[in-house]
Amino acid sequence: MKKRESPIPVMGHDGRFRIDSSTHSKLVADWDRLQRIFIRPEDDDCKAVLVKYMEQILFGLHGFLNDHVGVTEAISLEALAQDFRETHICADPEKRLVDVISDIIGKIAPRAVNVASPYFVGHMTAAIPFFMVHLKAIVAALNQNVIKLETSKVLSVLEKQVLAKIHRLIYRFDDSFYHHHVQRIDTALGSFTTGGTTANLTALWVARNRNLLPCDGFGGVESEGMAQALKHYGMDRAVFLISKRGHFSLRKAGGVLGVGNKNVIPVDLDASHRMDALKLDQTIRSIKREGKTAILAVVGVAGATETGIVDPLDQIVDVCQTHDIHFHADAAWGGPVILSETYSQKLAGIERADSVTIDGHKQFFMPMTCGMVFFKDPRMMDHIAYYANYVNREGSVDLGIKTLEGSREANSLILDSALKIMGTKGYALMIDHGIETAHAFAEEIEGREMFELITPPELNILTYRLVSPEIKVQLQAATTCDEVVQLDRMLDEINIGIQRTQREAGKSFVSRTRVNRSISFPQDLFSFQSFTDEKCYGDHGKGKDAPKKDHEVVVLRAVIMNPMTTIEVLKEVLDEQETIYHSMKTI
Amino acid sequence: MKKRESPIPVMGHDGRFRIDSSTHSKLVADWDRLQRIFIRPEDDDCKAVLVKYMEQILFGLHGFLNDHVGVTEAISLEALAQDFRETHICADPEKRLVDVISDIIGKIAPRAVNVASPYFVGHMTAAIPFFMVHLKAIVAALNQNVIKLETSKVLSVLEKQVLAKIHRLIYRFDDSFYHHHVQRIDTALGSFTTGGTTANLTALWVARNRNLLPCDGFGGVESEGMAQALKHYGMDRAVFLISKRGHFSLRKAGGVLGVGNKNVIPVDLDASHRMDALKLDQTIRSIKREGKTAILAVVGVAGATETGIVDPLDQIVDVCQTHDIHFHADAAWGGPVILSETYSQKLAGIERADSVTIDGHKQFFMPMTCGMVFFKDPRMMDHIAYYANYVNREGSVDLGIKTLEGSREANSLILDSALKIMGTKGYALMIDHGIETAHAFAEEIEGREMFELITPPELNILTYRLVSPEIKVQLQAATTCDEVVQLDRMLDEINIGIQRTQREAGKSFVSRTRVNRSISFPQDLFSFQSFTDEKCYGDHGKGKDAPKKDHEVVVLRAVIMNPMTTIEVLKEVLDEQETIYHSMKTI
Repeated sequence: MKKRESPIPVMGHDGRFRIDSSTHSKLVADWDRLQRIFIRPEDDDCKAVLVKYMEQILFGLHGFLNDHVGVTEAISLEALAQDFRETHICADPEKRLVDVISDIIGKIAPRAVNVASPYFVGHMTAAIPFFMVHLKAIVAALNQNVIKLETSKVLSVLEKQVLAKIHRLIYRFDDSFYHHHVQRIDTALGSFTTGGTTANLTALWVARNRNLLPCDGFGGVESEGMAQALKHYGMDRAVFLISKRGHFSLRKAGGVLGVGNKNVIPVDLDASHRMDALKLDQTIRSIKREGKTAILAVVGVAGATETGIVDPLDQIVDVCQTHDIHFHADAAWGGPVILSETYSQKLAGIERADSVTIDGHKQFFMPMTCGMVFFKDPRMMDHIAYYANYVNREGSVDLGIKTLEGSREANSLILDSALKIMGTKGYALMIDHGIETAHAFAEEIEGREMFELITPPELNILTYRLVSPEIKVQLQAATTCDEVVQLDRMLDEINIGIQRTQREAGKSFVSRTRVNRSISFPQDLFSFQSFTDEKCYGDHGKGKDAPKKDHEVVVLRAVIMNPMTTIEVLKEVLDEQETIYHSMKTI
Repeated sequence: MKKRESPIPVMGHDGRFRIDSSTHSKLVADWDRLQRIFIRPEDDDCKAVLVKYMEQILFGLHGFLNDHVGVTEAISLEALAQDFRETHICADPEKRLVDVISDIIGKIAPRAVNVASPYFVGHMTAAIPFFMVHLKAIVAALNQNVIKLETSKVLSVLEKQVLAKIHRLIYRFDDSFYHHHVQRIDTALGSFTTGGTTANLTALWVARNRNLLPCDGFGGVESEGMAQALKHYGMDRAVFLISKRGHFSLRKAGGVLGVGNKNVIPVDLDASHRMDALKLDQTIRSIKREGKTAILAVVGVAGATETGIVDPLDQIVDVCQTHDIHFHADAAWGGPVILSETYSQKLAGIERADSVTIDGHKQFFMPMTCGMVFFKDPRMMDHIAYYANYVNREGSVDLGIKTLEGSREANSLILDSALKIMGTKGYALMIDHGIETAHAFAEEIEGREMFELITPPELNILTYRLVSPEIKVQLQAATTCDEVVQLDRMLDEINIGIQRTQREAGKSFVSRTRVNRSISFPQDLFSFQSFTDEKCYGDHGKGKDAPKKDHEVVVLRAVIMNPMTTIEVLKEVLDEQETIYHSMKTI
């Protein structure tokens, strides 16, 4: 039997035990002590202490997560920053592990954001299953680097398998395809990345390179750069055409890749906030007629960050195939919906995309940070291959050959384990819950006098705003565009105020963003159809392809992914917003 | 008192307890069970089980780490891959957490690479202090996303502080500078990244943009792309000048950024394998005379991946300042040497670099994956700022505004805690140990008949090769270049064979790479001075700036970072290599 008396003996950073009275003895760095932190202890007492620390992490932090919601301490950013101004690092050890853990539990965690709260419905970060912490600890303890077989061995092989599993969910090729490629050294079905941003960047990097290939004495864009590439192909510029609701990482990718972020061109939306495939086709035809612009890729979203909307993937692919253009589907958010029997149809067409982004830390409920990118053609990633003698030798299985990132932890182990523990059905239950609760929430919003639903939930994200009865009346009576704009500005202020106050109160959290209110928006409570004033909705861009500058309004945004977020929770969120509005009025 | 009887009750994925007999009962996904994995248990029995799993992770994996070294199972990649070919995901849960953990301990870990072994001296991945696993578990449990204040609050503030602490180590500005910038919202001293690759990419991205700025109706390279930028500035191409021993991520960055990887131009090395500052100056002058090439940045290394060499930073900065060129120091490996009182002088000049890369998962001994990039000028990262309404609003403290990556975990908490537990002196002890052990190892190699030291350790990396007595005699007698090349080819085969056999045997691991043997190499055991045959060492490049094609030889490479790697361990590594050589001869 293990001894575990009170007071618990405390192990310092030196691996030695002492009773707590020595807490204030000076800590020093010396070689003997240092070495011990690299040797996991053999005796039971020492082990018990290390386990005790893990227990504190699992349940001390858990205590915080149960006790508080939202940003738990009503401390301003400025006040908070005051405690984090010291920039010297002590020469001698300042704290033992036990004190560091206590500090984190006592001082850091209460000032972090409780993203796990069911009332935290503002961003794409939420509760994760508790076993994820165990799995992440395993990944850290193994400390493999999957850039290279020599620092990961089985984890490289496992990663290829997991990529094939998700590839199969998306593309549904047959057994022989996967049998051929799952462990093949010279092909790649995709890669793990840090997140959606680098996954999108990887996909657009591949798309750029496959368009501006080496030929006729030209070494290709990767070798010679964008300027030479355009010159060689007789073009003035290159563009990506993206959904107007595309994530800002797409603009960033355009900037990084030397294409230019102003050449990441948003395609207009249809009445239901989806990319308009007809306008896409028109845009492509007009660009092609002009003849001096290379279209590197079209990007559609499956689960837009702001609205959760899924672009009409099938229609977009039809257009892309007609014009032979790379189609990338940014399914960072919506990807795992393919696991749901009920809703997977919403992503119809994704299996025809040339490349697909899916985030692990979003709807696969993995801990930060894990993204993935997949390619329909297992040879596509050849366009971004890099070799080096000391790592990533040609002909090796080294996974770092075809990735943007260098060193990478073995996150595939987490996803693989989670899929085994949950099954696709377990994930499907969470996906279905999110979508269905979001729909119930939309109904609740539409049923309340004070609220207006702005974008209904196609998946599990919706936007809405509070419209006070007084302004509502004025909006209905408005006869000019200017009047509406002015009233909307007042509503903007009110909704910003409500969101901030609710966030600071620390019980609930929704986020806010801005959404275009275009004339043709059918769900609009206050029809804008009568306002066609050019000043209000006109095209302020310089060229044909410039984005339309519509009338923007501030909206509240709810993301329903936490299985503990019920419609009752969401009603409370709305109740609080109404209460805040009333208290704002009385000030 | 907690109950902890045998057999231990096992908690399924459903959060319910059962005795182990139920292992084979069918697992199903249902809503009630699913929800429970999001609620950490309140009762002591359940808690005990979760803690027990953590204990298995800490010490079950630990058992593996103690029992095995190197790649522990002599299983070929092909055989290994056979077990990872299934690409279907089960609809119902396949395994409970307990079984997943057992599988990982029993089947995955023994086939992973024991990077923590003192005999694993081949790559820049090694043992990490055991408390790192605890810290990573904390980061996972908090699950903050530091892209945005609303999903991280105190962790954003802490990250700024930690960046300032490391910035201060590098740049040593005064108190008032750090007081001003540490928590300032609109400036940035650096950012955390995935690793050195994305840190270097970030630095070169900034350098590209600050060279090709908006002006006179031109929107800047980030907005308009590389082709328009070069056109606007009247240039034909843009280049990065890098150390010939620069990491391949620099070439990759050139490719990604639209500059072209052939425009990432290696500058020749001097006799001690460092960038030759004089040749750098000549190259810059010749490029400037020609007048149609923009030099975006010069990159020097502080701790080259293959040789550990530090470029003469001070001399290079002198050259860069003369010509007003951005200087980036890639100190991914060597950065933490600044913590050593004894050896920090080796990095003299780093405080004058415009930007610096340092990896957390290398010599800060953090778990995968953590890199950092720092900028001397806190306004420099403005050149890569991106905003979006739903995240990263202008004027906010959101850390995602000026980073390549999007979502990011709060790795600053790990580094901050480690610095508190270790002190700078604790880290310095590890750095000093690595450097001093590498020097002792070099002496040992030089003292042995069978070995030749190729690049001596400036820091804690060295390369060497085995030279058999027979070939040594022939080399000494060689009179033509061809003869030497042929003998070196034989040695290449021998050293490749030794490295592979040792790796497969699973006791020790050194890596291998190829190093140029240039005529002027002074430490060369077999002086090459007499061979000046053009065919052998001539310039095979097309232009003046093309890299010289020297005579390359296969070398063994040792990286000494593990505090448990002693000179005795390294002697055993050499002994084994000699034994392998003799056994190869008898086959």
